[in-house]
Amino acid sequence: MKVSELGEFGLIDLLAKMINCSPGSQPSRQQLVIGIGDDAAAWRSGAAIQLATVDALIQDVHFSLDTASWYDLGWKAMAVNLSDIAAMGGVPTYALVSLALPGDTSVEDVTTMYRGMIELGEQFGVTIVGGNTSSAPVIMISVTVLGTTGNQDKHILTRSGARPGEKVAVTGYLGSAAAGLEILTRNLPIDPESAVRLKKAFLQPYPRVAEGQLLVEHGIKAAIDISDGLISDLNHICEMSRVGARIEVDRLPVEPVVRANFGTRAMELALSGGEDYELLFTGSVPTIEKVRKAVSCPVTVIGEIVADEMGKVALLDSGGNPFHIEKAGWEHFTSQ
Amino acid sequence: MKVSELGEFGLIDLLAKMINCSPGSQPSRQQLVIGIGDDAAAWRSGAAIQLATVDALIQDVHFSLDTASWYDLGWKAMAVNLSDIAAMGGVPTYALVSLALPGDTSVEDVTTMYRGMIELGEQFGVTIVGGNTSSAPVIMISVTVLGTTGNQDKHILTRSGARPGEKVAVTGYLGSAAAGLEILTRNLPIDPESAVRLKKAFLQPYPRVAEGQLLVEHGIKAAIDISDGLISDLNHICEMSRVGARIEVDRLPVEPVVRANFGTRAMELALSGGEDYELLFTGSVPTIEKVRKAVSCPVTVIGEIVADEMGKVALLDSGGNPFHIEKAGWEHFTSQ
Repeated sequence: MKVSELGEFGLIDLLAKMINCSPGSQPSRQQLVIGIGDDAAAWRSGAAIQLATVDALIQDVHFSLDTASWYDLGWKAMAVNLSDIAAMGGVPTYALVSLALPGDTSVEDVTTMYRGMIELGEQFGVTIVGGNTSSAPVIMISVTVLGTTGNQDKHILTRSGARPGEKVAVTGYLGSAAAGLEILTRNLPIDPESAVRLKKAFLQPYPRVAEGQLLVEHGIKAAIDISDGLISDLNHICEMSRVGARIEVDRLPVEPVVRANFGTRAMELALSGGEDYELLFTGSVPTIEKVRKAVSCPVTVIGEIVADEMGKVALLDSGGNPFHIEKAGWEHFTSQ
Repeated sequence: MKVSELGEFGLIDLLAKMINCSPGSQPSRQQLVIGIGDDAAAWRSGAAIQLATVDALIQDVHFSLDTASWYDLGWKAMAVNLSDIAAMGGVPTYALVSLALPGDTSVEDVTTMYRGMIELGEQFGVTIVGGNTSSAPVIMISVTVLGTTGNQDKHILTRSGARPGEKVAVTGYLGSAAAGLEILTRNLPIDPESAVRLKKAFLQPYPRVAEGQLLVEHGIKAAIDISDGLISDLNHICEMSRVGARIEVDRLPVEPVVRANFGTRAMELALSGGEDYELLFTGSVPTIEKVRKAVSCPVTVIGEIVADEMGKVALLDSGGNPFHIEKAGWEHFTSQ
């Protein structure tokens, strides 16, 4: 079977099973809190829990130099990993950068890219401490970000912490990044100010690190960052928490300019566009209200966790009827 | 200027300066012991020092599927990173794998590669705890390995710890991996048993993790792993320690079968072939003697550290005369 037939998530599941079923009983495994299958790995180390995540941007798969600047690339390569630490409620600390690019790349482009990484990293206290560079036919930027909970009293946010009866909430707006990507690649008649903002949502997402830590402080247990799309990422929570979810699509926080310019497709962008890097989390109504007051971005309740339909996400319109959508989310290897 | 004109080490120097000169004063920077420029980064965390390193194997740059099996790829991607932790004298703990490959790769090949990584990792107590997969036009395997010194009483081995008067020593044999690569790509009349052993030195290097820890225990301060070639890697020690080095080429530990089959080129393979992943370290004669008794591999004194000719490696023949070699070591981006 080809990797493209199994798909990205099928491959990850298979590799995770291989690792978990290997006979090792090393001390590192005994200290492990969360291995493969969440936004970041977590393990006990002294008085704290340590976190680690790695993600890569690959030319003409995740980005094109036709639409992204080198600064954007650096920013985004750092941002997607900071977002994973945010989704665990952690404090990011250090980063390592594995960089491959064609030898005829200009040095100035590489330093501009690093400036994007450094400047975003510093906003969250992250120091780049290592890496490697190599030649390659296309640009590949793989960033590892490490983090911590600070101390062991603080819990971490996981994909497996959702419970029936809890509400499902999201930070910020959905579909803005996907709208920005469309504006970058198609000539759409959108006012310049909105166009700049939406393009930035795609090119320079701002990771919800502060918000993730506030979720922990207010007692939220389950979270994930929306990288592959709301449905796909909520599905991960449902599978890991062994619950179902019902989403009322009319409650999705979509920017008015996206609704106005994308019409019926606005809902598709919000549900499955991906790359918004907002946090999706679950909790009781009073807890979510406390979170809403604590954070500086919008927090919107969009549905609820249910005990039946385990692992499934049901979409409902305002009349409570099933809402249908074709494309559920971003997945590598499969034809799109 | 192009990256290929600046070269790999020039680029790394430039990026390291950018990072070190950025204005950040985050707590993570205050806890940093070693940033970019050694085999691994090191920082204080609770009672221990934490280590982290990342290195990538890229198709048709670092390996070819014509000569390496998928199992070899997994093994080597893990091995080169374990070797970096070994060169710090650390205990490896966790690994993250960033994997990119064409969608038509067979799932079995990917799981075979993971088996190589898992099986080597487990020999050193390493658990794979995370990663990502993506499509790409060529195979790229970037592995991050984390480690620790166990406690803060234990020092780490660094590139900056060499002092004039110390001897320079290496573990194992030099040039075996480069000989193995030549055997893989050219039809050489070497006995099958030796051919298998030398090819394995290139395809499945065995990281000197136990030896690195024994170096620390016996008071060695300076070490590096030989990845780019003896001259190139000893140069790193000389530059970081602000010393010079003299190497007596006749003392280099080269396997008899390599000497017999490669003639005068055997010395070039040993000096600049690279990829041996042996440890190069410095110390007093009595200390090196203690190390020799403690480890199970050969330990050979090959020269000494000197105060003059700072940052330079001088090669001497048995008569004490300068020994000349054309190619000093492996570097990416530059034409070879």
